Amino acid sequence: MFGYLASMRTTPGHRDRVIALLTGGVDGLRALGCTLYLVGASATDDDVIWVTEVWESREHHEASLSRPEVRAAIAEARPMLTGDVTSAEFTVAGGLGI
Amino acid sequence: MFGYLASMRTTPGHRDRVIALLTGGVDGLRALGCTLYLVGASATDDDVIWVTEVWESREHHEASLSRPEVRAAIAEARPMLTGDVTSAEFTVAGGLGI
Repeated sequence: MFGYLASMRTTPGHRDRVIALLTGGVDGLRALGCTLYLVGASATDDDVIWVTEVWESREHHEASLSRPEVRAAIAEARPMLTGDVTSAEFTVAGGLGI
Repeated sequence: MFGYLASMRTTPGHRDRVIALLTGGVDGLRALGCTLYLVGASATDDDVIWVTEVWESREHHEASLSRPEVRAAIAEARPMLTGDVTSAEFTVAGGLGI
């Protein structure tokens, strides 16, 4: 399974709104091949969001990004993001609750 | 809920062994308050492991680190780790599959 994790920095005061956008449409992601979509508010920086995702494959993840509802959420969030993003891709090796 | 994610660099050729140590004891973590323990092999660096964890609280996470079986796994892994570690803590805001 394909894993993706990223941090993103929001403009000050907008983290909650961006988190709401990220978590708002998650129910539809399972049908697209997503098995984990974890959104977290950094405990050490008020403007940073962490996301960890697990998908059946990289292709499932990439296909989701062209979905209208996903594109709409990204477009709405973009003005509230500074562009300061980190990301990593991994192959799921195992664990608990995946 | 308390979230923790980290990357760790292994010494060359030891990533699989360290992954086995990390994933070997996960069944016992649920009883310690862990709801997600995701171990991934970086897709872009052969020596890097990513871990994303979710715990009922920071205290549950910290208490787990003093468990004999966890200390033993850390001690066995340590010689195969370079010390190059990144980590982040977050509060779980929501998502899918958590």
